[in-house]
Amino acid sequence: MKNFLNIHSDLDVNILIKEAIELKKNPFQFETIGRRKTLAMLFFNSSLRTRLSTEKAARNLGMEVMTLNVIDAWKLEFEDGTIMNLDKAEHVKEAAQVISQYADVIGIRAFPTLADKQKDESEFILNGFLKNASVPIVNMESATGHPLQSLADALTIEEFKTKHKPKIVLSWAPHVKALPHAVPNSFVSMMRTLEADLTITHPIGYELDDRITKDTAITHDQDQALKDADFVYVKNWSSYKEYGKVLNRDSAWMMTKEKLGTAKFMHCLPVRRNLVVEDAVLDSEDSLVINQSNNRTFAAQVVLKNILEIN
Amino acid sequence: MKNFLNIHSDLDVNILIKEAIELKKNPFQFETIGRRKTLAMLFFNSSLRTRLSTEKAARNLGMEVMTLNVIDAWKLEFEDGTIMNLDKAEHVKEAAQVISQYADVIGIRAFPTLADKQKDESEFILNGFLKNASVPIVNMESATGHPLQSLADALTIEEFKTKHKPKIVLSWAPHVKALPHAVPNSFVSMMRTLEADLTITHPIGYELDDRITKDTAITHDQDQALKDADFVYVKNWSSYKEYGKVLNRDSAWMMTKEKLGTAKFMHCLPVRRNLVVEDAVLDSEDSLVINQSNNRTFAAQVVLKNILEIN
Amino acid sequence: MKNFLNIHSDLDVNILIKEAIELKKNPFQFETIGRRKTLAMLFFNSSLRTRLSTEKAARNLGMEVMTLNVIDAWKLEFEDGTIMNLDKAEHVKEAAQVISQYADVIGIRAFPTLADKQKDESEFILNGFLKNASVPIVNMESATGHPLQSLADALTIEEFKTKHKPKIVLSWAPHVKALPHAVPNSFVSMMRTLEADLTITHPIGYELDDRITKDTAITHDQDQALKDADFVYVKNWSSYKEYGKVLNRDSAWMMTKEKLGTAKFMHCLPVRRNLVVEDAVLDSEDSLVINQSNNRTFAAQVVLKNILEIN
Repeated sequence: MKNFLNIHSDLDVNILIKEAIELKKNPFQFETIGRRKTLAMLFFNSSLRTRLSTEKAARNLGMEVMTLNVIDAWKLEFEDGTIMNLDKAEHVKEAAQVISQYADVIGIRAFPTLADKQKDESEFILNGFLKNASVPIVNMESATGHPLQSLADALTIEEFKTKHKPKIVLSWAPHVKALPHAVPNSFVSMMRTLEADLTITHPIGYELDDRITKDTAITHDQDQALKDADFVYVKNWSSYKEYGKVLNRDSAWMMTKEKLGTAKFMHCLPVRRNLVVEDAVLDSEDSLVINQSNNRTFAAQVVLKNILEIN
Repeated sequence: MKNFLNIHSDLDVNILIKEAIELKKNPFQFETIGRRKTLAMLFFNSSLRTRLSTEKAARNLGMEVMTLNVIDAWKLEFEDGTIMNLDKAEHVKEAAQVISQYADVIGIRAFPTLADKQKDESEFILNGFLKNASVPIVNMESATGHPLQSLADALTIEEFKTKHKPKIVLSWAPHVKALPHAVPNSFVSMMRTLEADLTITHPIGYELDDRITKDTAITHDQDQALKDADFVYVKNWSSYKEYGKVLNRDSAWMMTKEKLGTAKFMHCLPVRRNLVVEDAVLDSEDSLVINQSNNRTFAAQVVLKNILEIN
Repeated sequence: MKNFLNIHSDLDVNILIKEAIELKKNPFQFETIGRRKTLAMLFFNSSLRTRLSTEKAARNLGMEVMTLNVIDAWKLEFEDGTIMNLDKAEHVKEAAQVISQYADVIGIRAFPTLADKQKDESEFILNGFLKNASVPIVNMESATGHPLQSLADALTIEEFKTKHKPKIVLSWAPHVKALPHAVPNSFVSMMRTLEADLTITHPIGYELDDRITKDTAITHDQDQALKDADFVYVKNWSSYKEYGKVLNRDSAWMMTKEKLGTAKFMHCLPVRRNLVVEDAVLDSEDSLVINQSNNRTFAAQVVLKNILEIN
């Protein structure tokens, strides 16, 4: 059984990108492949793009879709061996097995706590379902990764690149809240898998997990990083070392039209205008954010298609 | 591109009423017209009738329906040029463009604040989506109008009228809460468009926007207004002049069987029994409220059908 | 018109069980019977299994499904003749009639207060809809019964029994919260209808309604009750006599592997591990809880199928 948990999951992203480009030409060409199949989407957290694009993707394949805000059910226990005498009414052992009987694929969104690094890195929610479910699991953004986003990002770069190996920069941006590492983690993993020319730039203290960045070029000099960039992916994340902390709110790191130059601007959305990036960038022809969000449908669709075909 | 924003919107209500009457005879006669098309319904506020009847209408046309309680996503910014460093995580500029890529029609419910008249009248939510979306917008009750309700109301009057130009009375009723002007505004606009014999009655201080009522007959004498009425539309609204204020809770304005006489009773629902109208009216043969709510399906269906055909 | 309100409702449970066994062999054999038909599911309370399995069941029959969390609409009034000047915005008289126009079947989940016995036993929500709706009503767990669960339970016993009349034990279990009587009530009614060899065991003070248990064998000696049991159905409920009270939290009543012996373990889920039952039971081959939850789909499907055929 093949799942889609992260970039290094059971599906080859190079093949997925190629198929997505073909799929996009006629999104309804496989509209009977999901007949009599059901996607259950479980949301432990808020969602706009993922919720709508994944539902759309499933329906384009002829699947039924059932959406469950987990808050409409009850709190789940993920620890083994506990005496469940507090606020958790059901164990993931039961929940995952049960839902597997009502659905052919389970999508899960579960953000990190940003308080307990070890717990977040255990991906206890995603892995709790993975371990106990009997149907494929799709990661709709977990504590440490957002592979559907990165697949859409890669597809967008593929569509807009004008040279074989464009220079891609991942640039940290300021924010008022502590945000997860899922998007930058998956983006870095994806770019490394595709052997892109990737540079990461961020303030001191914002180093991402080096098991993910490995030998990727990293600089604290944003100007230098942006030089001759073809694509600039802007994103805030909280500190990984001082886990979940906001160490820096320096607005000098905000992306501007001037800094961007002739590069294409990318962001996963939602984006806070004039905090992460100035209006002039988002409202320009060089912004690809709407294209990226459009490609979310085709990323989800090609993943679901492959899962339905293989399993 | 044609939207359905208010009574004076891009679709001719006279044609819509005629088509709705035909559609009602066989609601499934156009069940393939919406094939491969998706309606996204965005709720910024509570809904029962609109949520269910509009979904039913779309499915009767073969459309897929995706429902998003905006509270399940995040707060949207509607102002231009702000530094988004407070509680708004996404700008309508992005949200509207993004959702346009997942849906073929967007329905929006967004009530007024009843605190800031100018802001409410700007219809910043509905117009924020209208300005930025690339697909048609349907008003599922906005700050100042509820045209799907008024279309259902007009259809109900058309079905039950026994003379060419019946006398129609819009009668204010007491309530414990401050309620919006959307329903009375759209009802008045609709009746004026259909050239009905309309009279409005309400206590002093409850004058509706005179850009809507124009030369409609208005009286503070409810008894006089109700004389020889064929249809009596009862509704509470808060003061428009002293914007959003409750100036009057006089139960003498409640509709009774005695006052109603032989006229038909109408209300958009939900209705508070024995506050807005007494049980004896709602439980009588002269109440059309269930008919009105039934016609909500056909009103929505004819609007969606026209939008799908035109766009 | 036939509803499915409780075990003694309008459908013969013996026939439903037989049909469910046939249906399970090919769940899609009636996939056009629900064409152009809509199930509206109204949730006054949380749900996981019921929500997903009932939706799945309806879609397996080709029905459309509309789900409404009542909290997304507004509070309903169920009393007759009240002046609705508090927090209830709509009366069930209108709500039930209105929704009947948008749906062909209405499913309702409405838990008891566990504070007002008389009110709970009046089943004011379920009966409020039943009285005012013009389409069939399906009980998705009400104040006093959960017949879809018991139908799934009976189906599970039918599948796993190895003798004509197995010994079935309903054993009370400890819990931290006060829980409803709906599941044990319906289970007892179902077993009595099927003329099973049923024994109930619980601590003193936990007697169920004797209009339901009638002459069923009841003992406070759990060990004695469990002797030679073929199926042990474990469930917590609050006191019925001292209505809604938790009188006992004695962990000696928890089900263990040792106590269970060679019997099959049953529970409706969600279940609190190591409080109601120890891990060793749930993780053993003798646990049927996943089978029971699987049968929820077929229980709901056979009920909906019969309702669609009859009405």
